[in-house]
Amino acid sequence: MPRYRLIIEYDGGPFVGWQRQANGASVQGALEAAIAAFAHEAVTVKGAGRTDAGVHASGQAAHVDLTKPIRPDKLRDAANAHLRPAPIAVLEAEEVADDFDARFSAIRRHYVYRIVDRRPPLALMAGRAWRVPKRLDVEAMDAAGKRLLGRHDFTTFRSAACQALSPVKTLDRLDVLREGESVLIFTDARSFLHNQVRSIAGSLVEVGLGRWSADDMGDALARADRAACGPVAPPDGLTLVRVDYPEAESPPV
Amino acid sequence: MPRYRLIIEYDGGPFVGWQRQANGASVQGALEAAIAAFAHEAVTVKGAGRTDAGVHASGQAAHVDLTKPIRPDKLRDAANAHLRPAPIAVLEAEEVADDFDARFSAIRRHYVYRIVDRRPPLALMAGRAWRVPKRLDVEAMDAAGKRLLGRHDFTTFRSAACQALSPVKTLDRLDVLREGESVLIFTDARSFLHNQVRSIAGSLVEVGLGRWSADDMGDALARADRAACGPVAPPDGLTLVRVDYPEAESPPV
Repeated sequence: MPRYRLIIEYDGGPFVGWQRQANGASVQGALEAAIAAFAHEAVTVKGAGRTDAGVHASGQAAHVDLTKPIRPDKLRDAANAHLRPAPIAVLEAEEVADDFDARFSAIRRHYVYRIVDRRPPLALMAGRAWRVPKRLDVEAMDAAGKRLLGRHDFTTFRSAACQALSPVKTLDRLDVLREGESVLIFTDARSFLHNQVRSIAGSLVEVGLGRWSADDMGDALARADRAACGPVAPPDGLTLVRVDYPEAESPPV
Repeated sequence: MPRYRLIIEYDGGPFVGWQRQANGASVQGALEAAIAAFAHEAVTVKGAGRTDAGVHASGQAAHVDLTKPIRPDKLRDAANAHLRPAPIAVLEAEEVADDFDARFSAIRRHYVYRIVDRRPPLALMAGRAWRVPKRLDVEAMDAAGKRLLGRHDFTTFRSAACQALSPVKTLDRLDVLREGESVLIFTDARSFLHNQVRSIAGSLVEVGLGRWSADDMGDALARADRAACGPVAPPDGLTLVRVDYPEAESPPV
């Protein structure tokens, strides 16, 4: 039973999130229906990251098992043909070892959070960024973000609904940069808690607005208390950019 | 009667184009309705460039006259409030001299055309780029594009519906660059013929695919014959980025 790894791009706007749910269309459900339509068998597509409703991906990873082998490029093209007109695209497909698991084999996840700090509403970036109507101090955000690097109890930046066994995670990258009208937050870790990036982004905006200092960010982390978190940033600005695996299991994308 | 210059961003996807038309919603019509709703008078908004259906703007310019003066920032904010939820945003408003004309005072228009050259369909860039399913030779496109610089009869690259009195225009910039997955065509001129940028973009893709040489591009221009043009590129990839005016009339944006 061959196993395939898929790299997937999607606009999260119209979906209830990655995961199949009773209350609406999911990315996972759309992919499963598209593949089932030409593979003529029920399939399960397992993703590396269960993105929330409205969260986008330019490089989600997933795996799927098929009873009958198919050429990976045919799998990609047939899935894309059946996905139309949903805003989901399979960018890559390749056969992987039986023990590859998109979620558990992942060694790093890369996210970017996009903010546009301007007063006028967003026309071209609507649904793709968080508009903050005041100018943000990007240098202050970057400095405060650095306080979160390393291994910590991230209870402050974790949704109450988070099902992870432990709130301890290691944050490997947190960079805040300006790119034109956008303020971009780049962050990497082996894995994240539920709502962790959006909780951090919302707290960093408090810093950017001058309401929090870098010490306030460090204190919020140290308190390990959800009540110490800033407002959680909306999903629109968040994109899962890439998932890394050990080289033996899959080449870098 | 004070005159105001507006800088406007819009997603051209849902509109029949900039210009008011009987057959559907236009950007101009939406702006006029929004301003009329709070100014309590009928207004005409005159744009610098009459973008086609599906063409976007990140920096369209326009002017509007109001009987009663209003603070420019109030004009911007009230227009944006009344434009909601249309994907149109007034980025800037300022009072200008009576003889300022968004169309006729303009001394330069800047466009960018975005292509994504990949086989999988576009999910995040859907409606914002032209997907070309084969890898493009960007250096060849850039070299061929340089043949179009300067003052020429652009009949080859002009829509049959173009109403300009003369087909002679001066192209000041034509650069083709790769930026990640996108191939971007940057072009500037004092003014363009109808469909000129899309006609050039479509012909440049012929070069990028290896079907046309740089000499073919030069020959197509020299023939001054619409039949010599490559396929016209779709509107989705085109964005009016900026319009320049003499400094005395308006500061640079």
